[in-house]
Amino acid sequence: MAAVPEDVTGSGRSDGATGRASEEALMTLGAAMSAEMAEQPARLAVLLGQADAIAGRLREVLPEPLAGTVLIARGSSDHAATTGRYLLELATRRPVASASPSLYTMYGAQTDFTGFLVIAASQSGRTPEIVRSLQLARARGGSTVAITNDWQSPLALAAELPLHLDVGTERAVPATKTVTAELVAFALIAQAVRDIGFGPQVRDRLSGQVAAVLDDPGPAAEVAGWLEGRTRLAAVARGLLYGAAAEAALKIEETTSLFATAYSAADLRHGPIAVAATGLPVLAFAHPGPAAADVAELARDLSHRGADVRLAGPVDGSALPWPAGVPEVAAPVLAVVRAQQVALALARRLGRDPDEPGGLHKVTVT
Amino acid sequence: MAAVPEDVTGSGRSDGATGRASEEALMTLGAAMSAEMAEQPARLAVLLGQADAIAGRLREVLPEPLAGTVLIARGSSDHAATTGRYLLELATRRPVASASPSLYTMYGAQTDFTGFLVIAASQSGRTPEIVRSLQLARARGGSTVAITNDWQSPLALAAELPLHLDVGTERAVPATKTVTAELVAFALIAQAVRDIGFGPQVRDRLSGQVAAVLDDPGPAAEVAGWLEGRTRLAAVARGLLYGAAAEAALKIEETTSLFATAYSAADLRHGPIAVAATGLPVLAFAHPGPAAADVAELARDLSHRGADVRLAGPVDGSALPWPAGVPEVAAPVLAVVRAQQVALALARRLGRDPDEPGGLHKVTVT
Repeated sequence: MAAVPEDVTGSGRSDGATGRASEEALMTLGAAMSAEMAEQPARLAVLLGQADAIAGRLREVLPEPLAGTVLIARGSSDHAATTGRYLLELATRRPVASASPSLYTMYGAQTDFTGFLVIAASQSGRTPEIVRSLQLARARGGSTVAITNDWQSPLALAAELPLHLDVGTERAVPATKTVTAELVAFALIAQAVRDIGFGPQVRDRLSGQVAAVLDDPGPAAEVAGWLEGRTRLAAVARGLLYGAAAEAALKIEETTSLFATAYSAADLRHGPIAVAATGLPVLAFAHPGPAAADVAELARDLSHRGADVRLAGPVDGSALPWPAGVPEVAAPVLAVVRAQQVALALARRLGRDPDEPGGLHKVTVT
Repeated sequence: MAAVPEDVTGSGRSDGATGRASEEALMTLGAAMSAEMAEQPARLAVLLGQADAIAGRLREVLPEPLAGTVLIARGSSDHAATTGRYLLELATRRPVASASPSLYTMYGAQTDFTGFLVIAASQSGRTPEIVRSLQLARARGGSTVAITNDWQSPLALAAELPLHLDVGTERAVPATKTVTAELVAFALIAQAVRDIGFGPQVRDRLSGQVAAVLDDPGPAAEVAGWLEGRTRLAAVARGLLYGAAAEAALKIEETTSLFATAYSAADLRHGPIAVAATGLPVLAFAHPGPAAADVAELARDLSHRGADVRLAGPVDGSALPWPAGVPEVAAPVLAVVRAQQVALALARRLGRDPDEPGGLHKVTVT
């Protein structure tokens, strides 16, 4: 290998700062992101309290028989949808697809959505290709649901069933409370179809478990210290937590410009595992459940090959634990909150303001 | 920014080589990969000649009415399926889903596949989770197709319609001729359902166009020179070429251990674009068609933000061109051959043998 460690640079600090800013000054960075993260327990509790109302309204639009489900989302919302995809297929027992919006907005696909439940998720409800795709799906026979934080947005108005996240304005560019709320919304929709383990007892405890994670920022600060000066990160998971790993990679990438990628544990074995030998930093997400042993085995293998591996989750040797007393269907919410903490802490260490990462806008036009 | 350029190390050469090996010695590396790449024009011509036979057999298994299509694949085969996903939705006009095998092999999802065309793709036909997923899909009502290079494999035996790629044994670990053959197989299946522009005139010319790319290794050698010493690469595309960009990232990653990631142009704007300012190397794939302007605009934007961008495709200023006289449905094949050339040339520059990248096996067990 090269003599220079590939993943450590002199300093990741931006804007040509020459001295180390005071701890106090750094803590003012990401004020909006931090405040919005802190709102999550209360905001999620309100949304979780809507479970029965959402279930009743969903049953009114659910096609019978159901051909399948199509999810339409981009960015962080698509990561919530990635977890939602598993929950919805477990619940509906029919295939679930992730839409490729360019098929409808660029290639003129004449897809017939008859018999399909079509769910679009967008924080703003204003990303044009998401709105257009849902409109087309509805016009072509789909039963449409919009998950959004703006009940007056074009997306909400385009759907037969608008589900209002109602978590309040999100000012920081990196989405936080809207993502965990979208995860909850997908779980509520799935649970409305069939019991997937997201019943009242689980729902009633989730808000408190999010608060417990937020009240314990120490592990995330340590992980941020481990990542300082790196240029690359692989986030690894499998199954229900894969969407959370994808969100972790994006959250850290957009706030710190560290090049971060999420891999399914299965896909990582098909080629990308070769990169482990370069000392690649890896954050592996696992929660007790059907996929945990596979992720643990892969983490050991990666470490053996030379990767620099840290575990996240309520598992032995974890660097980033969360409460164990939660079923795996709820774990992605806690994993995403942990990722938010890491992104915020690392951005502050680097002297960056995560509220306004360079060149990003709150509504993405694609 | 950090004073040390983040993407350039002293040398990427492996195994502690201190001097520069002779050009001749380096050209013996990847002998199997190189030979298998060279077989592609002849092998693909044979497969393309099966178009009518495949169309006839497909019509026998295609459900009527069709609920939708589910694709099951991992690694390079999944990248061929990613392009296949677009082609099949354009052709069938019903939603197409990419399966999450862990739903069936780990989570016990009771998915009912009645009315669905279910297509699994695997070079070896022996990846256990792919075989098991197809078996379950068939047992639960799906109409099953297996695309594989071994007609006696468990996957071929599990499907109602086994499609034999018949490209001969693939010895090099990085899949080459099987991937382009899978791309052709997906296009043939889609064309059998409805004319998507992959008719006889296009098919008859494709093999010659692949040969023309293989006979022109110069541009790939230059791109390999541009990548030497880098630790990161983003491959960007949108629409039909996205699967080819994903395959480019994987092929380069598995042969050279460069950390490479593919982004849809749309997803890149949702956060990851922030990383451009770190001088990130970007290879942007475009072909004249509905998505080309979007990729070109993103490439300019990335360049403006500080990324080091190279274009691939028959477009102005391209560093990695391929013949323009091909419709976009066939372009992924040419793009993947270009990516193979870059991977091979870069591995040789680094003194690595791409035939046997560290720790990879020809059949991946997941």
